[in-house]
Amino acid sequence: MTQTTPDSARTAVESDAAHADLSRRRTDRIGVAVLGAGNVGSEVVQILQRNAEDLRARVGARLELVGVAVRDTSRDRGIDTELLTDDPAALVVRDDVDIVIELIGGIDPARELINAALEHGKSVVTANKALLAEYTGELSQAAEKANVDLYFEAAVAGAIPVIRPLMQSLAGDSVNRVAGIVNGTTNFILSSMAADGQDYDVVLAEAGRLGYAEADPTADVEGYDAAAKAAILASLAFHTRVTAADVYREGITHVTAADLESARKLDCTVKLLAICERVDDGAGHERVSARVYPALIPLDHPLASVGGAFNAVVVESENAGRLMFYGQGAGGAPTASAVLGDTVMAARNRVFGGRGPLESTYASLPIAPIGDINTRYYVSMRVADRPGVLSAVAGEFSKRDVSIATVRQQGAGEDARLVVVTHFAKDSALSKTVEALKDLDSVRNVSSVLRLEVTDE
Amino acid sequence: MTQTTPDSARTAVESDAAHADLSRRRTDRIGVAVLGAGNVGSEVVQILQRNAEDLRARVGARLELVGVAVRDTSRDRGIDTELLTDDPAALVVRDDVDIVIELIGGIDPARELINAALEHGKSVVTANKALLAEYTGELSQAAEKANVDLYFEAAVAGAIPVIRPLMQSLAGDSVNRVAGIVNGTTNFILSSMAADGQDYDVVLAEAGRLGYAEADPTADVEGYDAAAKAAILASLAFHTRVTAADVYREGITHVTAADLESARKLDCTVKLLAICERVDDGAGHERVSARVYPALIPLDHPLASVGGAFNAVVVESENAGRLMFYGQGAGGAPTASAVLGDTVMAARNRVFGGRGPLESTYASLPIAPIGDINTRYYVSMRVADRPGVLSAVAGEFSKRDVSIATVRQQGAGEDARLVVVTHFAKDSALSKTVEALKDLDSVRNVSSVLRLEVTDE
Repeated sequence: MTQTTPDSARTAVESDAAHADLSRRRTDRIGVAVLGAGNVGSEVVQILQRNAEDLRARVGARLELVGVAVRDTSRDRGIDTELLTDDPAALVVRDDVDIVIELIGGIDPARELINAALEHGKSVVTANKALLAEYTGELSQAAEKANVDLYFEAAVAGAIPVIRPLMQSLAGDSVNRVAGIVNGTTNFILSSMAADGQDYDVVLAEAGRLGYAEADPTADVEGYDAAAKAAILASLAFHTRVTAADVYREGITHVTAADLESARKLDCTVKLLAICERVDDGAGHERVSARVYPALIPLDHPLASVGGAFNAVVVESENAGRLMFYGQGAGGAPTASAVLGDTVMAARNRVFGGRGPLESTYASLPIAPIGDINTRYYVSMRVADRPGVLSAVAGEFSKRDVSIATVRQQGAGEDARLVVVTHFAKDSALSKTVEALKDLDSVRNVSSVLRLEVTDE
Repeated sequence: MTQTTPDSARTAVESDAAHADLSRRRTDRIGVAVLGAGNVGSEVVQILQRNAEDLRARVGARLELVGVAVRDTSRDRGIDTELLTDDPAALVVRDDVDIVIELIGGIDPARELINAALEHGKSVVTANKALLAEYTGELSQAAEKANVDLYFEAAVAGAIPVIRPLMQSLAGDSVNRVAGIVNGTTNFILSSMAADGQDYDVVLAEAGRLGYAEADPTADVEGYDAAAKAAILASLAFHTRVTAADVYREGITHVTAADLESARKLDCTVKLLAICERVDDGAGHERVSARVYPALIPLDHPLASVGGAFNAVVVESENAGRLMFYGQGAGGAPTASAVLGDTVMAARNRVFGGRGPLESTYASLPIAPIGDINTRYYVSMRVADRPGVLSAVAGEFSKRDVSIATVRQQGAGEDARLVVVTHFAKDSALSKTVEALKDLDSVRNVSSVLRLEVTDE
């Protein structure tokens, strides 16, 4: 056990280093423009003002907020009204702006504004996953040409550092798989359904009341938000440009309380997963699979215990093995934390020179269609309660070389249900099997089809 | 559900960007010297050679291994013998060397070699926690003067990105606490003791056989390794220079099978924790506490399920909230992954200009002595099995204003034991109470004193 107190030598060494550092500065002031003063934007503005001294020490120059673009400048936001403007296009090209923080979201006008900023030599920090999932190539090219930074840590999993680890920490490794819970709204809904046994509609309404779901929840519950994030993660992980259209996507609207009950009987829970994988095409060529769907995962899977609105991302790579990152994936303050981390780094680069890495697409791997992916299915169907049903159902699986892992019959008579879990098979064979099951006389309907993800196999 | 395949436009955009990028290069070759070819060093050399094409694409220039310094050049390591040298001092200053990767460990000669490399304008990547825990100030100053990088992601928690998140991702946030399991050997031992009920000595011997403990395990089991890492984490988290001597330290050699059994009865387990905290001195001034000790943590604590040789670090900050990072904290390949991530970033900075952030010590917070820290104690003592014992014991606690949370009596007669868990109190009051207990007639001995860490209180 040792315990000492700091001595005065500390301060002397420190100021030497600080002096060497400051002599190399290109500027002692960085102008910052913020586009959007919603949940995240107003947090960013507050922190810029509240932590001005700390930020100055970390950057090596003063971060000066020079303007905030909003739609309605007359609304009181607790922001100095002289900073407000409803002309973002004029703001982003102003001479006194060095860094543009884009928090408007959506494709237009964010795309034009960011491009204009980059063309005028401004560094850009954005949390705009929808835009990045389509236009990272275009924006990176513009940043490259202007030799400025384009940072977007906040676009995936909020405060959780995922972008920087993939782009920088794992830059010397080879990533094989990224799987995560990257949408807090759907995770809140599925966690609540699992805990309370309530139906989707009931929980969605509650999520809306609690502020966990938007008035129009489509982007979240249909998986568009998660798919955009999957595209961004897959691009970085595999050095290949992947856009939202390359991501196979299913939402959670068809997940039922009965599915969660069945999952529990199988020692599983249901999570909306974003999965990005390096897969072999069978002929020794690598391809990229990016997909988003609700899946059964065993209760001892590292993602199973990620509850409520939390996010987590598991990265598997050749040398580092399995890494997991966990935290708050949304919300004003957590997202603002990621935005400001990027802002400090972009500012440092402007003060001392240099630039963070941009996208890297040298690998240019082809995208694997979902039908080629090896996966496991959970199929729940209402069946006639009579002899021969199981044989007919099993026959459809075996015809397509799909091996069944477990079958469970639940209920009887009108309520008779059959729950089948398969071993690994090609997704196309599995989906064809499900189509064939629907045509069987003894199957009243196929009520649920979910995939099953296991940790290792 | 959407699914498209990549189109040819992708390649065109890509080569434009790559062209712009390459036109800005300062060099198309980066010379790399590796010091040490042990477990990590030989992995680094292999990956540099095996993944040469990927690394070239990521850096924008060829990484050329120009030399590997070893003690005995005659031993076959599967490394081209022409690369081997037993003169590291000559290697690190060679003109064809741009980046020095230091994997020798220990203070001398690593310190001189790194200083020489930095003075000669080489960027340095190191995994040397013992050195960094003492000399980060000196080394950062040398790197600052030469305007080169000093990266050390691999020094804490192996492959898990912790340094870069603290220095960069959270650069705009204010960290309040970092708590982690950062030593794989002790976590393997404590996990095995918890699982098998075996004694420390038995499990330590097994850990040695399995390669999880070194022949001389002192640095691990006495907490020196974790304390060095705590010093590094505290420095980065609180922008204050903290050295190993500032870290309060206890090892795990006194943890018994009985402690783990008592812990289980309290729904807890025992982990060796490294804790770095921003604490108030009671007069509104901030101080830094850094400490390493075995502690009871509740089974539902996020660190409780981190088993075997794994590492995990929980970071709590003002805006990001609680983040957790989990993965392999040691081993050749995982550590090599972190080293190579740093190497790629250092190489990129030499190719395109710029420099990563160095240490930041502007906050210069004083260190809080352990006695001032509020904590909870678990005290296990052998007592005389007679009336009045509990009253005498409780009296010593209450005399010092320490409130007792639970008391459990185990055994009877000669084996009578009393296990007391306290509420929060000043560590100095708690340790004085323990000293007083030892003097009580009715207390035969105080067999164990451990702290108790809870998630929130």
